[in-house]
Formats: sequence, structure tokens, C-alpha cells
Amino acid sequence: MASARALDINGERLWDSLMEMAKIGATAKGGSCRLALSDLDRDGRDLFCQWARDAGCTITIDSMGNIFARRPGRNPDRAPVATGSHLDTQPTGGKFDGVYGVLAGLEVVRSLNDAKRETEAPIEVVVWTNEEGARFAPSMIGSGVFVGAFDQATAYATQDLDGLTLGDELARIGYQGQEVCGQHPVAAFFEAHIEQGPILEAEDRVIGVVEGGQGMNWYDVIVTGAESHAGTTPMNRRQDAYLAAARLAVAIAGIAAANGPHAVATVGQVRVFPNSRNTVPGRVEFSVDLRHPNADVLAAMEQALFTALDEVCDPVGLAHAVKRLSAEAPIRFDRDCVDAIKRATEDLQLPHRAMVSGAGHDACFIAGVAPTGMIFVPCADGISHNEGESATPEDLTAGAKVLLAAMIERANA
Amino acid sequence: MASARALDINGERLWDSLMEMAKIGATAKGGSCRLALSDLDRDGRDLFCQWARDAGCTITIDSMGNIFARRPGRNPDRAPVATGSHLDTQPTGGKFDGVYGVLAGLEVVRSLNDAKRETEAPIEVVVWTNEEGARFAPSMIGSGVFVGAFDQATAYATQDLDGLTLGDELARIGYQGQEVCGQHPVAAFFEAHIEQGPILEAEDRVIGVVEGGQGMNWYDVIVTGAESHAGTTPMNRRQDAYLAAARLAVAIAGIAAANGPHAVATVGQVRVFPNSRNTVPGRVEFSVDLRHPNADVLAAMEQALFTALDEVCDPVGLAHAVKRLSAEAPIRFDRDCVDAIKRATEDLQLPHRAMVSGAGHDACFIAGVAPTGMIFVPCADGISHNEGESATPEDLTAGAKVLLAAMIERANA
Repeated sequence: MASARALDINGERLWDSLMEMAKIGATAKGGSCRLALSDLDRDGRDLFCQWARDAGCTITIDSMGNIFARRPGRNPDRAPVATGSHLDTQPTGGKFDGVYGVLAGLEVVRSLNDAKRETEAPIEVVVWTNEEGARFAPSMIGSGVFVGAFDQATAYATQDLDGLTLGDELARIGYQGQEVCGQHPVAAFFEAHIEQGPILEAEDRVIGVVEGGQGMNWYDVIVTGAESHAGTTPMNRRQDAYLAAARLAVAIAGIAAANGPHAVATVGQVRVFPNSRNTVPGRVEFSVDLRHPNADVLAAMEQALFTALDEVCDPVGLAHAVKRLSAEAPIRFDRDCVDAIKRATEDLQLPHRAMVSGAGHDACFIAGVAPTGMIFVPCADGISHNEGESATPEDLTAGAKVLLAAMIERANA
Repeated sequence: MASARALDINGERLWDSLMEMAKIGATAKGGSCRLALSDLDRDGRDLFCQWARDAGCTITIDSMGNIFARRPGRNPDRAPVATGSHLDTQPTGGKFDGVYGVLAGLEVVRSLNDAKRETEAPIEVVVWTNEEGARFAPSMIGSGVFVGAFDQATAYATQDLDGLTLGDELARIGYQGQEVCGQHPVAAFFEAHIEQGPILEAEDRVIGVVEGGQGMNWYDVIVTGAESHAGTTPMNRRQDAYLAAARLAVAIAGIAAANGPHAVATVGQVRVFPNSRNTVPGRVEFSVDLRHPNADVLAAMEQALFTALDEVCDPVGLAHAVKRLSAEAPIRFDRDCVDAIKRATEDLQLPHRAMVSGAGHDACFIAGVAPTGMIFVPCADGISHNEGESATPEDLTAGAKVLLAAMIERANA
């Protein structure tokens, strides 16, 4: 470990690279717009590949456009220890979401070069295609095909709003590579990312040691009562679908509270019918988003949702229907990878805490095929997917230091 | 009273007239569409005037198109005891809302004729213009100008969705009369109407003795929190505008319950922003409708609303804004008119109860210029403003009997 601690990161170079990349698709409000497989995404990829080649890396591109930049190891037979994230952004995205994970990886390579340090296993920096899902749905399509969660032919046929396909656009920008997607060996994978939440900042911690990704279930609920006159219908004769929906929203927040601190529950989408100020609502449709890192707890939260529906609706004679739209199981990252990150953080004496990722990341897919870990750094007010997304050079540097140390440990193990 | 009891109503004739009138603008689902001052409204007015003339009445029309059909009294110097309602309907209206009050009045005249009974004061049947407000807003415009609540010039200039003005349409259908609106003498006014609510039917009563109209306040509320990621924002760091709005909806129902049984409170219109299933809502706009027959209680309910806003929003740091859009004071009908209706109901041994009107009616305006009372009869499931609006011949006949007796008492007093 002493040798890892001795190695440093050039925080200024990392920051300058982030700012240079942000110029590609720069928006007036200080963010970036590089939609996946657009000309600007190509320009970003080109810049990354140039920087990686300048740092002595060789570039491999797979059939989904995922880019692997390799710094050789002492032992060419070992599979690479990889890191990375994505370069595509939301339409009004920030400078850090995804980009940081790629350029922190590049900074790891550059720092190893500066120190003339060899590793046993090769080090790779990966750029995954179309993580955001903003242009082509679903999100995380490059890493998803890589792990077999999605079919490549289906991914290729995915269209953007203009009817252009992902496959055609990949070829057009020159990033449809020869390597079959999913065949690239990966000994371990690390992803550094801004938290996209408020916890680290609020607790004044620099590093989130991410232990996994929470499970997430989505539901659509319809509550049906009876429309009636707001003036002539006494309270005890109403079948007010919105009052029931409101009671349910309170109950759903209660389900999260009862399973705290890791449970979250959100009613984000609500439609009231007929939505007239002097008519008691006859029908309400709303979404429910339940998340928890533990599958058993998530299942119990679902049961509590069903119970709440019965308890709120049945006594007042309202009908309800609930449909589970999707269920994503919780992910636990590899214990060794998580421990490597934690050790690096402790060696560097950085304030840290264990976390669960609330959002989806490429690492969540890669965890299915290789030992994986994630490093979070704070972002201002927890805001991302926003041009105002902000992180400090100090925190970004600290995250890259942890990444470097964890990767060296893993590559030399 | 003995002589009043002896007088009967021809329920079959009343029902047949209702069904005949319903043919004008009949809809496929069994309702009627006679929008105010349309050709069909004119046809309905023409039919009423013909029936009234056939019953020996003279017709006066005022400058707002309000129709007064007079059966002479023994004493021509006395102001008439009047009854009536409206013939216009909602776009998908029923056969009874308004029409019943007009044709029950006509049946009073016909029954007096059948019995060759004279009254001291004249009896009049009134058709008020544009009660529904469906074509020209606001509602109750004919009775509103009559009592000075609205200005006639403004009423004339009111446009429908096609840009046609009420004044032009009134002239076009031939119902812009010579008498200055508001100058017609009225000694007392009675209005028979379907309840438009579920109470009488639920309690198996035939007559609602309406003691007044409830006060009604309308509000718009905006709750502002902060949009955030549904996955990465812990529950205790959220500023969820919808969760606050939901708690407020529950609190508002509680305000009605605390002021029961006469208080009603409704959140009928709700808009959630950004209304995305995986974003914690940052803003919610919703309507509040508070009603109570007592002005002091209504004022206390408003204070309770303001308190609830503070109590729900302040502890979690949400901003809120509330705007009172309108405030209609409660109305108390004339004690003597109400008592006359109650006596008639008791003499006829009809199951009855005291009520407050939850909806607005022409009688609520007329109460400001003449002693006024209202008679409610049940309608199926409390449904109105609907083609399925339904009432039984027996209940409608009973209501007309009460109306007849009350009017005779008043006209001979």
C-alpha cells in the first residue's frame, strides 16, 4: 500500500481535461449537450481517443461502439482492470455526469505514466455507448448489450425521435467497431461518478464507497370513485378518488419512512379526472416508484403498498387497480472491489461513507459479469441532469486518487 | 288551509309536459341540449309561452329575455306571487334541472284553472335567462341582472365561444322584451328544483325545505418545493411538493369533517410539475372549494385552510401561495316563505327535511329583492348536469303540490 499512497494524481490536468471536453457541445448556461452518437458525441470520443493514444494507450472499439483504451500491463496474459463511464449527456446535461468517470480513468493512466509505474494487469479506460438514454431508449444500452441484458440487433434498431436508428448512427460517426460486443475480457471494473444526490455534501464527506445499487419497482395505480357535485354532495356521501389518492401518497411516504433510512418512495406523476374545481374527482391515475437496496425489504414495501390500497379504498367503496410496470433487482458490488475502494479512501484519510447508488450506472450492469465497485464524489445540492451540475476540483481529484489506488491494488494483486 | 289541501295537481299532465319539453333538443342518451338563446332555447320558450297563453296567462318579457306569465289575481293592485326557474340546459343536460321549476309553476296555474280557484294576488310563472352559464358565463345572468348583481350592458356584451354576444342572440331569437329588467314587481318567489344531490333519496324523503344557500369560497393554492431525483434523494432531504399537497388534501377534508355535517370542502383540480415518475415533484397547483351555510363558520374554515398550509409546508421548508378567487356569502331564505313550504309539506304528510342548497339557483339572487323560498325533490343518485338525470313522477307531483299550496297561502295572505 505504501507505493500506492506515494503515487499522486494531477488534479489540475484532470480539471483542465474536464473543461476541455465540456467545450464540445457547450451550452449557454455552462452545461454540455452531447447526445449519444451525434456529431458532438463523435467529437468527444475523438478527443478522448486522441488523449488516450497520446498517453500510450491502444484503442479497441466493439460492435456497440464501446471504447476500450488500454495501458499495457507487465503480464499481457492477464485480463485488464478497467474503469470508465460515458461521454454522452442529457440534452441539458452537465460537465461531470459520466465524463468524470472517463477522464478520471484517463488521469489514472497519465499518472501511472508520470510515475513510470507498471502494473501487472493492463489498465483500461472504457467509454460505454448511450448511457443516458436521452436520445435512444433505454439507458445504459452499450453496457447492457455488453452483459447480455439487451440484444444487439434490437439495440441497433432503436430509433431516435427523428427515426434514425442507433445502428446507422453508430456506423455514420465511425464508431461501429470490429470486436464483438461482450467478448472483451474484464478482470474487474471500477466507475467513479458524481453522487447525483445530496448526501455526501450534506454530511461533508468526500468519498462515497458504493456498496451496490438499490432495487427499483415502478407501478401505475388507478383509483376510481364517482364524480359528483362539489356543492351538493355531503362529505359522507362522496367517493372522492383524489382524497383517496392523497391518503395513499401520505401512506406511501410512510412506507418509505418505515423502511428507512435506505428506502425511498415517490409519487411523481398524477392525473386527476375530470380535474374541475367544483366536481369531486371520480378517477385519479398516479405512478409509484419504490426503491430499496435489499430485495426482501423491497418486496415487503410492495406488499405494504397493496395493503395501503385496500385500507384506503375499500372502506369508502372505491375501486383500485395497480400494475407493476417494472422490477429491477438490487445489485451488490463485489466485496473485494468495495474493500479496495474503502482501503484507498482510508489510506488517503478522506472523509467517506458507505452508500447505495440511487441511480442506474453502467457499473450496475458490469457487476453482472465482473467484480465491480463504484466511487462517488459530491456534487453541489445533489443536482445533476442539469446544466448547473457542479463539483469541486478538490473532490474530483480525491475521487481520482481513490480510483488510482484501488486499480493499482487490483492490477497488482 | 283546508281549501289548499283540497286542491290537487295533475301529475300526469306535469309529467307529459316535462317529456314534451324534453323533446326540444333531445339527446341520444335521453337528456336535452337547449343552450341559452339558441334556436332550441327559443323553441322551448315558444312552447312554454303557448302553454301559458293556453292557460289564460298574459306574457311579459323583459330586456334580459326573462319571461313572466301572469294568471290574474282578484286584486290587480297586488304584486304577483311568482315561481319559476329556467329552460336552458347544460350541453349534455337532463330533462329536469330548471325545466321542472318552470313547468311545476305552469301546473300550478293549470290546477288553479281546473279548480276555478281565484287568488288575491296574481300568480306568475317566470323563465330566467341563461341560468346554466354553459353558453354565456357567468351563470344565473338573467336573475343576476334582475337583482342588480350584474350590469345589463356587460351581460349583453358577453360572448359565447363563437364570439356571438348574448345581446345579439337575445334579439335574434326574438326574446329581447320591452320591460326594463329588474322593474317587474315580485311579492314573493318560490322555486321548485331537483336536489342535484343525494340526501333526499338516501334518507327516503320527498321534499327538501330549503332554508338557504351555502356560502362558497374558491381558492388557488401553489406549493413549491424542489425537484429532485427519485432514486438519489433520501426521504429526509426531499422538498416534495406533491406529498405536501396530498397532506393538505387530507387536512382540507378534515376541515370539512370538523365543521360537519353542513361543511363541504373539495380539491377538484390538481396539476403536478414536472409530473415525471422518477422526479420528486417540485411544484403543485391545486384548487380548494370551501362551502358552508354560515358565514362565520366559512370564515373559520378559511382560517383553518391557511393554518393547514403553514403547518404542512413550513416544517419542511416548502413555500406556499394561496389566492382567494371568489367569495359568495351564504343566503338565508325568507322565514315566512320557508314556513309556508314547511306547512304545506306537513299538511300533505310528505316525508321532508330542512336543507341548504349546495348549488346556485336563480332563487338565490331573487332572495335579495323579494321574500323567497325553494322546494327540492329527489333525483336519482344525486346526479344532474347529465343526460341520465332522473326523477320520479310521484316526487315531481309532490313537489308541485307543495308549491301550489305555498303559493296559494302567500297569494291569499
